[in-house]
Amino acid sequence: MQPSEIQRLSDAIRDVPDFPKPGIMFRDITPVLGDGELFELTIRALAETAGDVKIDKIIGIDARGFIFGAAVAHLLGAGFVPIRKKGKLPWATEIESYSLEYGEAEIEIHKDAIGAGEKILVIDDLLATGGTAAAALKLIERIGGEVVAVAFLIELTSLNGRERLGDARVEAVLTY
Amino acid sequence: MQPSEIQRLSDAIRDVPDFPKPGIMFRDITPVLGDGELFELTIRALAETAGDVKIDKIIGIDARGFIFGAAVAHLLGAGFVPIRKKGKLPWATEIESYSLEYGEAEIEIHKDAIGAGEKILVIDDLLATGGTAAAALKLIERIGGEVVAVAFLIELTSLNGRERLGDARVEAVLTY
Repeated sequence: MQPSEIQRLSDAIRDVPDFPKPGIMFRDITPVLGDGELFELTIRALAETAGDVKIDKIIGIDARGFIFGAAVAHLLGAGFVPIRKKGKLPWATEIESYSLEYGEAEIEIHKDAIGAGEKILVIDDLLATGGTAAAALKLIERIGGEVVAVAFLIELTSLNGRERLGDARVEAVLTY
Repeated sequence: MQPSEIQRLSDAIRDVPDFPKPGIMFRDITPVLGDGELFELTIRALAETAGDVKIDKIIGIDARGFIFGAAVAHLLGAGFVPIRKKGKLPWATEIESYSLEYGEAEIEIHKDAIGAGEKILVIDDLLATGGTAAAALKLIERIGGEVVAVAFLIELTSLNGRERLGDARVEAVLTY
């Protein structure tokens, strides 16, 4: 992307203080989604993180990762695989738990969602502490997928989330 | 779509008995998502429901509606607006409640998500009783959007959901 395009995206993101709780500055990406041109820019930037590798499947993480991931899958002609919060997927799953600030959460993937050696691009909107993405990478590895890159629209660099993602190549369109 | 294409989609959907609870036959659309070609077919079929109308924004309903809606938005060059379960949207919202089998649920849209008179295509994966879609239509009307059509991948016709959607044009790619 051109610096001017990055600036346009950055300008469109709406900072909402104290959401979902006091002290948190929420980066609201809905103005980017709602503008067809900015949405297209974002999807192209995320898709470019694959480089020259032909991607078999995009993995999107429940729920905002579905929005970006599905559009990237459409752009690349790839399949789309959802990783969901526990209890939403109807077929046989692999489950991984991860820590939240208070307590734990679990995410799932269908066991048959990826063929062995398939090239995977993981998409989510936000890299914060990296807990969800790290759990997602474990699930993908467990069922045989080969992660080409993990791409986020936004990275909150002060939280060092990428350190939890091991050897995976991590890309972010915007950093805060 | 050609009848042969509809048949391919129909064949790919996986019937899962007794999910999420005994007596329910769940129509699992993840095999359609995971196949790049079937996903593309589905997105084209959903987009075609707009006819010759230039769509300004796609509304996708949390969470599977995000997958189809975002890809249709990308195909049409439109913006994407999420309708979310309560508590997920950070800015000023309109809220609508609707009945579930046991109790109530609430969905929200950002008040500034749609400009007056914008042409809207509503996308979700499944039309069952129509409660969620009816609430979504109320939200869109309240903030000034003009609904061109409501498009589903699957309609469970025995539940008469489309009767709750008023004058809206309702389209479904597959019916059961």
